[in-house]
Amino acid sequence: FLSTCSVAFRVIQEKRCSRGSMRKVIHSVKVGIALVLVSLLYLLDPLFTEVGENAMWAIMTVVVVFEFSAGATLSKGINRAIGTILGGGLGCLAAILADEFGGIGNAIVVGASVFIVGVAATYSRLVPRIKRRYDYGVLIFILTFNLVAVSGVRADKVIRLAKQRLSTIGMGFAVCIFTNLLIFPIWAGDELHRSTAAKFDKLARCLEGCLEEEPNNKAENLGAKVKDCKSVFHSKSTDESLANFAKWEPWHGKFGLSHPWDMYLETGEVLRELAALILSLGVCVQSSRQLHQATAIREPCEIIGLSLAWILRELGESIFNMTRCRAKALIAPKLEFIKQELSRLGSSLQIKGLEKDENLAMATFIF
Amino acid sequence: FLSTCSVAFRVIQEKRCSRGSMRKVIHSVKVGIALVLVSLLYLLDPLFTEVGENAMWAIMTVVVVFEFSAGATLSKGINRAIGTILGGGLGCLAAILADEFGGIGNAIVVGASVFIVGVAATYSRLVPRIKRRYDYGVLIFILTFNLVAVSGVRADKVIRLAKQRLSTIGMGFAVCIFTNLLIFPIWAGDELHRSTAAKFDKLARCLEGCLEEEPNNKAENLGAKVKDCKSVFHSKSTDESLANFAKWEPWHGKFGLSHPWDMYLETGEVLRELAALILSLGVCVQSSRQLHQATAIREPCEIIGLSLAWILRELGESIFNMTRCRAKALIAPKLEFIKQELSRLGSSLQIKGLEKDENLAMATFIF
Repeated sequence: FLSTCSVAFRVIQEKRCSRGSMRKVIHSVKVGIALVLVSLLYLLDPLFTEVGENAMWAIMTVVVVFEFSAGATLSKGINRAIGTILGGGLGCLAAILADEFGGIGNAIVVGASVFIVGVAATYSRLVPRIKRRYDYGVLIFILTFNLVAVSGVRADKVIRLAKQRLSTIGMGFAVCIFTNLLIFPIWAGDELHRSTAAKFDKLARCLEGCLEEEPNNKAENLGAKVKDCKSVFHSKSTDESLANFAKWEPWHGKFGLSHPWDMYLETGEVLRELAALILSLGVCVQSSRQLHQATAIREPCEIIGLSLAWILRELGESIFNMTRCRAKALIAPKLEFIKQELSRLGSSLQIKGLEKDENLAMATFIF
Repeated sequence: FLSTCSVAFRVIQEKRCSRGSMRKVIHSVKVGIALVLVSLLYLLDPLFTEVGENAMWAIMTVVVVFEFSAGATLSKGINRAIGTILGGGLGCLAAILADEFGGIGNAIVVGASVFIVGVAATYSRLVPRIKRRYDYGVLIFILTFNLVAVSGVRADKVIRLAKQRLSTIGMGFAVCIFTNLLIFPIWAGDELHRSTAAKFDKLARCLEGCLEEEPNNKAENLGAKVKDCKSVFHSKSTDESLANFAKWEPWHGKFGLSHPWDMYLETGEVLRELAALILSLGVCVQSSRQLHQATAIREPCEIIGLSLAWILRELGESIFNMTRCRAKALIAPKLEFIKQELSRLGSSLQIKGLEKDENLAMATFIF
């Protein structure tokens, strides 16, 4: 049975691996297509006469905005658009204002406005809430403001220039959206959903790995499971960026516009705590094994651990399938049984039971 | 004594807070200065006649490359420079090659080279090792290659154009380096050093918080300590990016060119494991307190815990001051004593002793 399991595990691992590299190839090809499409602005004569040298801005937009997932692309694109519009508008105002002064006053007003806007916008980029969602937009705002305000000193046709650039940036963005969202789109939301469900499975496997005790229990096998567990506990920043991108994504698949992405973050937080507990449980079990202690309470502990692992799997599966936990009726009595066992043992393992309750509450809350 | 401690803690907290926001203000003002300096290329007539419209690229470089820490700025700047040179060179080659064909063949060769280079470079951006250190460089490579190759179709003076852009980018970079490194530089290495040393202190405080047991032990006080402990354990990605930037930084203060930044990552890894253990220890202690159990072994456990906290503080301080652990002679017998206590108790707390040993080994390895 165990060998079957390990073979299945390896197959899944490989499949996941090849799926990951397949997606990388798809993404790369999509970028290539978008670049060729946007280069047509230069390459085809009728298009070039229309846009001229400003086609450069379309290429720049595609290179910079095209990201791996749909959400990231949309987020960057919308940030760029808003930043450009705001920066351009304010820059025009500054250029017109400076024009009133004329001569040396012109340069001084432009310099002062560049300084003030630069300092204020840079400070706002360091505020965590803005940094998380609008960092790129503010960057583009500073850039556009500077370019427009400063070149306003030279060019009288500042507004025409801004309009042209804006329209080419729009073209670039349209190419991005077209290739990114319509050709094999990669959704950050899907990724977050899948990885959250997979975390339950990883934890369950790690828990079993800590508890099982055959003579041929290879250390490297356990090591791999512990590594999985650690990957759960370092997943915070990945999860946060995925959730951030997922919020930008339109309706797709089973995910509506108001899908509760923050719930995934909360579930992830609880799972990370659980991962820490499982890791330290593993160390405890190992050291108590070395000391040949506490054999009396080992068996009930193992039973509890295995049923916890089973519950975790069940929860992960139900989250993955987005079904109301089919086994809710099954899980509740199991938890009750575990609690009774625990209060009988009165061991420090109780913490896991508590943790689990919280987890279950969270999971049922989601669906 | 405790109230003194808490006051001291609050003062440190506030000081750190104000220091943090002070640095943010300094950074913002530096960005403002750099922007004004680079705008002079437009504003002053003699400079403008020299560089012309290409001054735009200098502004863009400053806005995009100027980062919070010196290491991040250098890393981005050098990446940008190398990406521009390589992309420009390869783009010129592609444009010249395409010129050989002429007519419609020209456009086809350019389109094909854009596609191939775009796909290959985008794929390389997804390789973790390249992504970590050279992501921005590859992005700029793609951008420059496209711009040069595509506009080569139109402009015969591609090489002159590339040279001009390169020199303005160089000017922008020089302004960045000047303002970022010479005016109140903020070093990523310093930050990593300080945060690593502070982690020891946080863990020690959390450990004490878990163990101490006065009647007026406010829950919120403990909560703050646990939060500190959690912040240690989510510090992986911050640490990694700081270490990455620190490697780009030149010699400064006590930090040489070959300062072992990777050691900080290893120490951080061990500290994160320790944080997980302390967190679960805290839960264990709480639940055992609720059950009024195991009072017999509580006192020795507390003694052990407090001396561990003391050792942690000592280690953190010696790392902060970069002195060879002054208390090495003091710590070794303490650890010996703890080990004896533990083997006497034979409790699951042993894991902490082991962990500590490893930690000490690591710390002495560094110095």
